[in-house]
Amino acid sequence: MEIYKIYVGGEFMETNFPLDVQNPYNNEVFARTFLSGKNELEIAISRAESVLDELKEIPVYQRYEILLQISESLKMERKRLAGILAQESGKPLKYALGEIDRAAQTFLIAAEESRRIPGEFLSIDWVPSGKGKEGWVKYFPLGLIAGIAPFNFPMNLAVHKIAPAIAAGNAIILKPARSTPLSVLELAKIIDNTSLPKGAISILPMDRKAGNQLVTDERFKMLTFTGSPEVGWKMKKDAGRKKVILELGGNAGVIITESADIDLAVQKCLVGGYAYSGQVCIHVQRIYVQDSVFKEFSGRFNKKVRELKFGDPLDPETDISVMIDTENADRVENWIKESVEDGAKILLGGKKQGAYFEPTVLTNTKKEMKVCSLEIFGPVVAVERFSGFQEAIDLVNGSNYGLQAGVFTNLVSEMNSAFNQLEVGGVIINDVPTFRVDHMPYGGVKESGMGREGVKYAIREMLEHRLLVKNIN
Amino acid sequence: MEIYKIYVGGEFMETNFPLDVQNPYNNEVFARTFLSGKNELEIAISRAESVLDELKEIPVYQRYEILLQISESLKMERKRLAGILAQESGKPLKYALGEIDRAAQTFLIAAEESRRIPGEFLSIDWVPSGKGKEGWVKYFPLGLIAGIAPFNFPMNLAVHKIAPAIAAGNAIILKPARSTPLSVLELAKIIDNTSLPKGAISILPMDRKAGNQLVTDERFKMLTFTGSPEVGWKMKKDAGRKKVILELGGNAGVIITESADIDLAVQKCLVGGYAYSGQVCIHVQRIYVQDSVFKEFSGRFNKKVRELKFGDPLDPETDISVMIDTENADRVENWIKESVEDGAKILLGGKKQGAYFEPTVLTNTKKEMKVCSLEIFGPVVAVERFSGFQEAIDLVNGSNYGLQAGVFTNLVSEMNSAFNQLEVGGVIINDVPTFRVDHMPYGGVKESGMGREGVKYAIREMLEHRLLVKNIN
Amino acid sequence: MEIYKIYVGGEFMETNFPLDVQNPYNNEVFARTFLSGKNELEIAISRAESVLDELKEIPVYQRYEILLQISESLKMERKRLAGILAQESGKPLKYALGEIDRAAQTFLIAAEESRRIPGEFLSIDWVPSGKGKEGWVKYFPLGLIAGIAPFNFPMNLAVHKIAPAIAAGNAIILKPARSTPLSVLELAKIIDNTSLPKGAISILPMDRKAGNQLVTDERFKMLTFTGSPEVGWKMKKDAGRKKVILELGGNAGVIITESADIDLAVQKCLVGGYAYSGQVCIHVQRIYVQDSVFKEFSGRFNKKVRELKFGDPLDPETDISVMIDTENADRVENWIKESVEDGAKILLGGKKQGAYFEPTVLTNTKKEMKVCSLEIFGPVVAVERFSGFQEAIDLVNGSNYGLQAGVFTNLVSEMNSAFNQLEVGGVIINDVPTFRVDHMPYGGVKESGMGREGVKYAIREMLEHRLLVKNIN
Amino acid sequence: MEIYKIYVGGEFMETNFPLDVQNPYNNEVFARTFLSGKNELEIAISRAESVLDELKEIPVYQRYEILLQISESLKMERKRLAGILAQESGKPLKYALGEIDRAAQTFLIAAEESRRIPGEFLSIDWVPSGKGKEGWVKYFPLGLIAGIAPFNFPMNLAVHKIAPAIAAGNAIILKPARSTPLSVLELAKIIDNTSLPKGAISILPMDRKAGNQLVTDERFKMLTFTGSPEVGWKMKKDAGRKKVILELGGNAGVIITESADIDLAVQKCLVGGYAYSGQVCIHVQRIYVQDSVFKEFSGRFNKKVRELKFGDPLDPETDISVMIDTENADRVENWIKESVEDGAKILLGGKKQGAYFEPTVLTNTKKEMKVCSLEIFGPVVAVERFSGFQEAIDLVNGSNYGLQAGVFTNLVSEMNSAFNQLEVGGVIINDVPTFRVDHMPYGGVKESGMGREGVKYAIREMLEHRLLVKNIN
Repeated sequence: MEIYKIYVGGEFMETNFPLDVQNPYNNEVFARTFLSGKNELEIAISRAESVLDELKEIPVYQRYEILLQISESLKMERKRLAGILAQESGKPLKYALGEIDRAAQTFLIAAEESRRIPGEFLSIDWVPSGKGKEGWVKYFPLGLIAGIAPFNFPMNLAVHKIAPAIAAGNAIILKPARSTPLSVLELAKIIDNTSLPKGAISILPMDRKAGNQLVTDERFKMLTFTGSPEVGWKMKKDAGRKKVILELGGNAGVIITESADIDLAVQKCLVGGYAYSGQVCIHVQRIYVQDSVFKEFSGRFNKKVRELKFGDPLDPETDISVMIDTENADRVENWIKESVEDGAKILLGGKKQGAYFEPTVLTNTKKEMKVCSLEIFGPVVAVERFSGFQEAIDLVNGSNYGLQAGVFTNLVSEMNSAFNQLEVGGVIINDVPTFRVDHMPYGGVKESGMGREGVKYAIREMLEHRLLVKNIN
Repeated sequence: MEIYKIYVGGEFMETNFPLDVQNPYNNEVFARTFLSGKNELEIAISRAESVLDELKEIPVYQRYEILLQISESLKMERKRLAGILAQESGKPLKYALGEIDRAAQTFLIAAEESRRIPGEFLSIDWVPSGKGKEGWVKYFPLGLIAGIAPFNFPMNLAVHKIAPAIAAGNAIILKPARSTPLSVLELAKIIDNTSLPKGAISILPMDRKAGNQLVTDERFKMLTFTGSPEVGWKMKKDAGRKKVILELGGNAGVIITESADIDLAVQKCLVGGYAYSGQVCIHVQRIYVQDSVFKEFSGRFNKKVRELKFGDPLDPETDISVMIDTENADRVENWIKESVEDGAKILLGGKKQGAYFEPTVLTNTKKEMKVCSLEIFGPVVAVERFSGFQEAIDLVNGSNYGLQAGVFTNLVSEMNSAFNQLEVGGVIINDVPTFRVDHMPYGGVKESGMGREGVKYAIREMLEHRLLVKNIN
Repeated sequence: MEIYKIYVGGEFMETNFPLDVQNPYNNEVFARTFLSGKNELEIAISRAESVLDELKEIPVYQRYEILLQISESLKMERKRLAGILAQESGKPLKYALGEIDRAAQTFLIAAEESRRIPGEFLSIDWVPSGKGKEGWVKYFPLGLIAGIAPFNFPMNLAVHKIAPAIAAGNAIILKPARSTPLSVLELAKIIDNTSLPKGAISILPMDRKAGNQLVTDERFKMLTFTGSPEVGWKMKKDAGRKKVILELGGNAGVIITESADIDLAVQKCLVGGYAYSGQVCIHVQRIYVQDSVFKEFSGRFNKKVRELKFGDPLDPETDISVMIDTENADRVENWIKESVEDGAKILLGGKKQGAYFEPTVLTNTKKEMKVCSLEIFGPVVAVERFSGFQEAIDLVNGSNYGLQAGVFTNLVSEMNSAFNQLEVGGVIINDVPTFRVDHMPYGGVKESGMGREGVKYAIREMLEHRLLVKNIN
Repeated sequence: MEIYKIYVGGEFMETNFPLDVQNPYNNEVFARTFLSGKNELEIAISRAESVLDELKEIPVYQRYEILLQISESLKMERKRLAGILAQESGKPLKYALGEIDRAAQTFLIAAEESRRIPGEFLSIDWVPSGKGKEGWVKYFPLGLIAGIAPFNFPMNLAVHKIAPAIAAGNAIILKPARSTPLSVLELAKIIDNTSLPKGAISILPMDRKAGNQLVTDERFKMLTFTGSPEVGWKMKKDAGRKKVILELGGNAGVIITESADIDLAVQKCLVGGYAYSGQVCIHVQRIYVQDSVFKEFSGRFNKKVRELKFGDPLDPETDISVMIDTENADRVENWIKESVEDGAKILLGGKKQGAYFEPTVLTNTKKEMKVCSLEIFGPVVAVERFSGFQEAIDLVNGSNYGLQAGVFTNLVSEMNSAFNQLEVGGVIINDVPTFRVDHMPYGGVKESGMGREGVKYAIREMLEHRLLVKNIN
């Protein structure tokens, strides 16, 4: 069994709190790592603080080279890393490979953006009291950042915090999910091989209680959290003076109109609905189809869902594997049961076996049912009808969440209404809400979060504004 | 008969070359002004050069107040000025009032933009040789500018050169069209009442030969010309080292598809086609209608054209009046005659009386006919059919010009194709190419010009780039 | 005694909770207004929510005209309004007039910025999965905003919340300070005369307990607070899911080096130190002077301080008048007493009479003394020595606060060090930290706040990001 | 003797016009290539035109990969390529290696910038006529570009045209200097190995007469020329409708004040004055030293100049080698002779041997002498005195040229005056005007050129503006 030391302020350490990591597909414990205690966290914090000035002054070309080296290393080790990721998370290999590729891309973008930290000029003499003066704004690193990453993209969602932190000149202490700490501890090794000052990065698995210090300790200037809404909003309350970025979940909706390309819609909804068993923040949970094309869409969609291939995450042919654990599979089962009791109809799937949950299609759901109103985080999709476009907009908006939404249409007026009215962070035309590339601004409105990721945007969140007013002459 | 002195380097003067101004509607000479000779131009140039340093250093709040005062004065005198403009140009009063309002708006925008002259920050240390350095870019005025304005918007197209020149800190010598010098000489009086240093602005009517010095004299750092393509491109050749901005004409096309709102299209094409007798750079000259809606569109359009009311430009009810002179009406008549001989069909109009040319609708034209391939600058529109959208794009692109184009559609795919493929400076969806607001970027591609106006964009053209590289520490 | 109704969702109302307003100079109650109860607040909230959609869709030209009309009205009524402001706050008339002028300017800037709400384009096809797609970002209003304004700039600091809210398309409920509600209720009348939908703005004096609902009610999407650090940071904790902007105070420092223009420094420090009795967030509290020029500076400075003229705030000659209340004067007296016991020396002033506190100069202070470490918010300045420039930087940074700092120097290297190292939101070269114009980004780091005001920046904080990803073809 | 085919529209060809390439150090002909005739140029043009649509539609990720592949190949072959460059140009190896590294960097920057082609959003409804509309600007490739590169940086100055052309989606036909065609023909081989559509790039040596078609042929939409002022300005006249970018030379000046770090100034002036025998557009030609430090500076400077090591360009130790040809060495000799006759004094050097010209220091020059007023393009520097800073500014500005200027100072006021008053494209504080990194905006004012290079800026020049106005709802 492989042992993974944790990465404490530039040093790989063991602690007194071992953490065994198991493969959810076969429940085999295949690696061991450690939880950070108070001491290790304290070491990490103090080493981070001691290198803040040094980090701030690294010239751009060195920052760039460090980020590029990490990106290159991820590319070179993609197969090995994807295997580890697949095992710890149960994510099918083809998606795990995609995730490593995206992590490499995220670091590359961060390298490029580190060259483009913005500044701003403004004339100050708009009024006589400003005569003879001009203003220049530059952006400075915030200092020490706390990052908390989820299990579902254990590598890339951690990288969306680490890479911008490096690009912006900050230090970061990152807590991975307890179930999936390994891939990002592999990343720690890669980072440790660069010339980034030791202490800038720590990767510390810990239990939630210990993790609470990341939220409350005032030495952290920012908390950036990706995870569930309840946990996230609670953290905001406890965060003291620090800035808080929350990337939470949702119950993303898709609208399919009669002007849509139905084949395209089917193919995209299939991936959006079932990739990694729906354990994706922007998983397609609700599909609204215009009456005139409902039958056509649902016929083709159900056919495709039936063809999804279950199997071992390490098998390259596998489309869908187990969920992260049986607790989650049980939860999904219960929500579906409740919805059926309240009138919903199961068109496909609906059963589980251990941590495996079948790809499921529901209909006749109501917006109050948990399968619609909460984030299901499982391979379950509700397909419903609408007649007019405004009704579809209202259906999607009838939710506490607002991360992304997809709209399949070829009408300018519908595209406009969607963009103007959908209460979400991103409207995706002719694709599913699950669409994301790593440089685009990403984040939710309503209860889906606050602040934005997407490398350039995350960097901006991690910088603070400083104005210089000086004489012109 | 009113006498208008010309505005020479901050002083109102008479010269030895009187210029009588007549009303093209009744051929009455109603005012006299003067042509500038070599001497007056020399005075204007040397006074302009002597205030360049002062202009550059005016604080932003003073620049803003000067521009705002001009804007306010135009608003207060709009009726009187519109009357003068209507008389010198034959432009119906309702359009003349609109032009004065737009000139006031153009100065207001210039006031606001004068506060927002941009700067730029860039990190320099992308490579080791740049270590310890950073860059700041600021924009500086070019110096003395030569502006040449046309007869068709004698006020606002002159203002599109004068207002940005003031906002950017430049001096400008403006030559109005010989037929329409009065409204802009009224503007000179308004400008003279501000605290702008005398010499910054000169308004000098002159004949083309004398005007040639504006093109060739190296003391001018920029020539900004609005007028005909032949004249414009010739000027570029003769302009020496100075920067050249050309706002030339075109033969603008509109596409009306079957997803369009036909009533809207009819109403917009009516104004686009016949306002000021089509003497507008972005006049609707070619309308391409999809087969399935051709009959509906052309029926309603022709009916509306028939209802246009001819009359005295000073009559507020007048829709259409005379053209600028009989030479132009003759030219239009000849082009139409030629086209008919080659197979075109006149659906409406086609006749002239003195300088008045009837609103005319042609069909069965060919792209080589002058009525299609050249800028007609008269109240003539060709209405033709197309079947597929790509055909419509190709028809609009089958021209040497490329100023703006209009597309009436509700399909995203057609909007995208139009934007990607139409070789023009501006694509207007669900409106005519004649659409312009004064702050939008405006200017042509192909033989329709080079450079951009629209206040912010004109200001940028009138500034030059200067980089400061300095040490960071 | 004049009665001021409060402005509840577009309606002027009396309530059951009268609030008498007194002139702190003569303790005379000269006006009466009312505190909002739960009911009035509920009316204000529900009316605001009912106009959110309408506000979002106001065309830019109407938004602009509304803001401009308010700005013009403030200019026209400046004398009357300044008189009211002087009476409620004890602010000398010359500063009160300046504040009304600034409020007019703030609305004007908001008008201009309302035209320039940004958007963003990004190519999406950086990776094959984004092929055929492009992204457009637009910014949408947050919805309902809660604003809390302080007594020290009762008009302009309220306007810094109201004007951006209107420009961005939001509704706002503003709570003025209990001691100074009148000038902003005058503003309510001006706003009520515009075509802004009723309900968009409410001005509600209330006690802190009632005001707590502004912090906790989830129907508010943002809380923007200007006031004291303790109150502000407590609010952040209680604010639920809403965004929080805090504009708090500080203990601003100035550095005067031997390359400085000493006369300029003296003149600027005089205003920065004693205007409105130092009740200014960016009041000059600490002056650090380089050894070689210490004597020269302090000699001239003390002489000027002695000449400050005390009097009635309504007297145009008055330089300094009373503080906002005797409690504050008492607090200042106690802090000085404590500092003297701990070794500080009073060079000038140090005494109080009722709410009047003499302009005071201290020296020999230590950084732990309250007069240095806390925000004194009174007419008290400590003047101290330093030898090397790095020492001066460290002295200014030796504080929990970081709003602005001033540096008098002519050396590039010192300007650079100041900008790179001073932990503040704004570094003002050759002027005092008290320097502010209303369009510049303004706000603190460390315990001085989070987020930025300055019209354009406040507007950005009041908008949320929405990405459209669409097909290119 | 190696044979280099020329690169005609994606094909390597020989022609009937052989061109022998010789090493200016030993006059040995070491390679042969060919001049393009009319036929080859016609092939290149027509192939370029045939791939324009394809180039425009390459997705960003492919464009990026192509540019990156070229950058990587240059890095891998740097030694071999630097050797070829050194031989064809006589440039000492250490500088030749630096040039290849910069070319790789230039391609890398172009890759990154190709992802960031900008767009712009603007609200259109500033006036009622724009109600319900919004505007989006995108930038489109111009089409076919003609590039003309000089001998002095045969690789990197060609790359500054080719890399932005690829990034922007244009085709380009590049004419290298006749004396130095080889390194860029090596680049052609590298480009040919990528997936860039054949025809997008042609590299065609030709004589000036043939090259004239690059200037006059209207199928080219832009001419971008780097070379001498006389030739450049003549081209502008003949360029027809195409856009013209001119990167010409100058007679760059440096100011050294008494607050400067003299050692730094000496070291920087040494490289700025003599690298590649001064055959650099931003070569330090005029050094103005403040009286009080004149003696110190010139003593140390002359000492360092004396130590420069002459030798074979292929010797890694060589500091200075031959000029490009004896004609140029003769010209430099004549100019110096003329200046001495008119009163100038030679402090060092002044002699030639074949194409080698000694590093030369002059003093007592006058601004009218050719050694001061024209671009010397040789290893000659004039060192003169000034007393006040304004005098130094005037001395630098007393020139027809304005490319870059250097100022060694530690005073804010002098930095400000330099930035505000020096009539140049770039002011370099505490470094020589010779400073350039490849991403910074670069280009001259006055007779030194028009338009800007520096990858991002060159890309912008190679794009045209297209506005989409569309309905919002």
